[in-house]
Amino acid sequence: MAKNLTTREEDYSKWYNELVIKADLAENSGVRGCMVIKPYGFAIWERIQAELDRMFKETGHQNAYFPIFIPKSYFSKEASHVDGFAKECAVVTHYRLKNDENGDVIVDPDAKLEEELIVRPTSETIIWDTYRKWIQSYRDLPLLINQWANVVRWEMRTRLFLRTAEFLWQEGHTAHATENEAIAEAEQMMNIYAEFVENYMAIPVIKGLKTESERFAGALETYCIESLMQDGKALQAGTSHFLGQNFAKAFDVKFATKEGKQEYVWATSWGVSTRLMGALVMTHSDDNGLVLPPNLAPDQVVIVPIYRNDEQFDAVSEAANAVMKDLRAKGLRVKFDNRDTHKPGWKFNEYELKGVPVRIAIGPKDLENGTFEVARRDTLSKEVISKDVIVDHVAALMDEIQEQLFNKALTHRSENTTVVDTYDEFKRVLQEKGGFIKAHWDGTTETEDQIKKETKATIRCVPLDDDTEGGSCMVTGKPSVRKVIFAKAY
Amino acid sequence: MAKNLTTREEDYSKWYNELVIKADLAENSGVRGCMVIKPYGFAIWERIQAELDRMFKETGHQNAYFPIFIPKSYFSKEASHVDGFAKECAVVTHYRLKNDENGDVIVDPDAKLEEELIVRPTSETIIWDTYRKWIQSYRDLPLLINQWANVVRWEMRTRLFLRTAEFLWQEGHTAHATENEAIAEAEQMMNIYAEFVENYMAIPVIKGLKTESERFAGALETYCIESLMQDGKALQAGTSHFLGQNFAKAFDVKFATKEGKQEYVWATSWGVSTRLMGALVMTHSDDNGLVLPPNLAPDQVVIVPIYRNDEQFDAVSEAANAVMKDLRAKGLRVKFDNRDTHKPGWKFNEYELKGVPVRIAIGPKDLENGTFEVARRDTLSKEVISKDVIVDHVAALMDEIQEQLFNKALTHRSENTTVVDTYDEFKRVLQEKGGFIKAHWDGTTETEDQIKKETKATIRCVPLDDDTEGGSCMVTGKPSVRKVIFAKAY
Repeated sequence: MAKNLTTREEDYSKWYNELVIKADLAENSGVRGCMVIKPYGFAIWERIQAELDRMFKETGHQNAYFPIFIPKSYFSKEASHVDGFAKECAVVTHYRLKNDENGDVIVDPDAKLEEELIVRPTSETIIWDTYRKWIQSYRDLPLLINQWANVVRWEMRTRLFLRTAEFLWQEGHTAHATENEAIAEAEQMMNIYAEFVENYMAIPVIKGLKTESERFAGALETYCIESLMQDGKALQAGTSHFLGQNFAKAFDVKFATKEGKQEYVWATSWGVSTRLMGALVMTHSDDNGLVLPPNLAPDQVVIVPIYRNDEQFDAVSEAANAVMKDLRAKGLRVKFDNRDTHKPGWKFNEYELKGVPVRIAIGPKDLENGTFEVARRDTLSKEVISKDVIVDHVAALMDEIQEQLFNKALTHRSENTTVVDTYDEFKRVLQEKGGFIKAHWDGTTETEDQIKKETKATIRCVPLDDDTEGGSCMVTGKPSVRKVIFAKAY
Repeated sequence: MAKNLTTREEDYSKWYNELVIKADLAENSGVRGCMVIKPYGFAIWERIQAELDRMFKETGHQNAYFPIFIPKSYFSKEASHVDGFAKECAVVTHYRLKNDENGDVIVDPDAKLEEELIVRPTSETIIWDTYRKWIQSYRDLPLLINQWANVVRWEMRTRLFLRTAEFLWQEGHTAHATENEAIAEAEQMMNIYAEFVENYMAIPVIKGLKTESERFAGALETYCIESLMQDGKALQAGTSHFLGQNFAKAFDVKFATKEGKQEYVWATSWGVSTRLMGALVMTHSDDNGLVLPPNLAPDQVVIVPIYRNDEQFDAVSEAANAVMKDLRAKGLRVKFDNRDTHKPGWKFNEYELKGVPVRIAIGPKDLENGTFEVARRDTLSKEVISKDVIVDHVAALMDEIQEQLFNKALTHRSENTTVVDTYDEFKRVLQEKGGFIKAHWDGTTETEDQIKKETKATIRCVPLDDDTEGGSCMVTGKPSVRKVIFAKAY
């Protein structure tokens, strides 16, 4: 099992960085903070996109595309938004290069833009500037639009997938006639994200609301789903914002009601990004490499032939092709790796590193016995399975692995969720164990800031579950309406 | 039929602009030269993407993603490339905004980048900088990668879809061990583009080679597919470049051969863009609006109910839902527009404007008679069809309309392709008729430039068909190995 990977225990952060690169998911580029998403990593992202896109369309959303550039002045129209986003960003100031007297390529000072353009960090402003033209009456509402796009935020400390200057995401932007309808939309999208992340990524999430200080810049309420990584740090997997009428007012987007009155439109926005790839890696993978849930694996099954000569290769290939055909007929994504440039041992290692859920090996002995060797990536266990039942066995394994990965992550989260009563206990648990910590908080930004400053833990969310027992804040002793969830976070 | 559209005869260019906006395909944004692709236009683009992506994957290509920014110095590494692309481009010079003393948002002069970043106009340089790390031996070849991305070229005169500062496209970038393999790849991709554009977009194309002066900056050979619009102007629908070893040498990408020798890699790149949307509009549409080929229409069939009261609506809806179910079971994309906010006449107009291939209307009379009214968008003809045969009839119509649109465009092209012997005749035909003009040319850039300067016509391609009869150049009288194709072009 020599993958030459740093183990998680040795250095979790190093393990993550090495794994992302060695499993061919992504790598750093020659451009500061920008990553290259490699074909295998992108194939997983394409599976994420396909499932989310289907879920968005099934709930009535349509895709569209808005410009990558946003005029600087647009940001200033929504006050909190400019502070939250427009500060650390890529600014386009010129539109031409030229050769100088030495023949070197330089920026042409004569080609300066009158108004600078910002490479979008998020698209509320340009989209609401457009919606003003699209929305006149209640008949134009709701407007349910999503865009798949690249965005840029000038992060100073970057890590592959988790925090990069450019990343890929989807951003939904919807417009509604009533406040309640917009809130229902924001909640619906949080629920869709939770359903996707739990059922496809096999990552359990806590649904909740962000506190005021953690809210999206420009939102009245931010819904989120929070997940817990193997190292006890939290990762925000998706957010959905109820924006009230803030952007409608900033961009003057009104509609005529059925009664003919002019009213401002209600808005939501919601997004998930390539950050989900980081959550996927950190939730399931082990010291041997990536572990992929079957629902997202580009290849769910790989078949590796074992042979010593051409005759054996032909016989083994025939059996492999037959089982591949049958598995594909069941809807499984199957690859037969019949390359003669690499040995079986190399291939076993490779697919373990890349997290393919099930590996089937077949050699001359198997042919004699009418069997296949079936290995599971999640448990690293092997079984010999008769060819009579191989297809049903492997198909059933897909569900079993998917479920067990989720359950394992759920158990890990349960074991790493601690309820504390005092701030001392809080600090001790945070130090010794990490994980989610549930505690009473007085609801003020002051206390939240103090805890963050003293412990680096933040309030991940005010959970939407039904544990609404009151108490007193662990720091100030003031009244608390319910426990909230703290953690150190990515 | 009052669509309030300018007719093609009145003003072709104005007709195009109005149609793109009124059919909800795209519109100009608040950012100079950048368009918003509206949901209906984007749904067509998604159909284009889905089919092309399938064809790319079936021929062994994988998707990946490379950074949007390219350091300025990368461009200078391939000499002809920087002249061709890096000059008119968006240049990022700063990474932060701040508030000035008046509270206005300004670019922070302290946050100036050491090296400017160019928003990619095309990605050869950043990709070949990456391939250096990915390619060591012949085992790593061929490397067959595609990316779907946005790119920016600072065009001064822009038109929706045809020429925009930002556009969407795919760019394939492949690396090969031998020259022949790279040439075969470039030809394969030209053929895939031709197959897609003819079979899905119903646009006939001429396959050919670009002349030296029209070649991609950095290519040894540019293969292209050329189409003819209704106004007699040509439109380049896709290009595929054989890049030789130019980028491998510029970025030092070598591989170890089976024999252990170090050799430079051979390259191709190929792309089509949202420009195809412009070709689609200009090839088939008429004075009533868009005409979509069934293979690309987001909705192939729309069903419009006719009714005067709730009782009629219920009865009509039942029949509509039944036929929709049966058509969908046949694999057709069908929409039942049961909105009560708009009248049937409004809907008829709307779907005509949006180019839905087949409209089915059903009212109380039809229910009595057991019929549907079926209208074709391409011919604007109507038929009454018995419910017993409606499903097969409509399914067959899809193929018929697809074929007839192609044939109509092919006839138009044939009628607007002229063979000329003299330069006078050339100028007369260009002036009076336009279209493709086949003529002998002496193969020199000087003559090509002279023709372009005097007539605004360019050599669209040296066709790859088998008409290879020699002759003498219509301008200089010098020997010509074969006729080439001239036109004024978009």
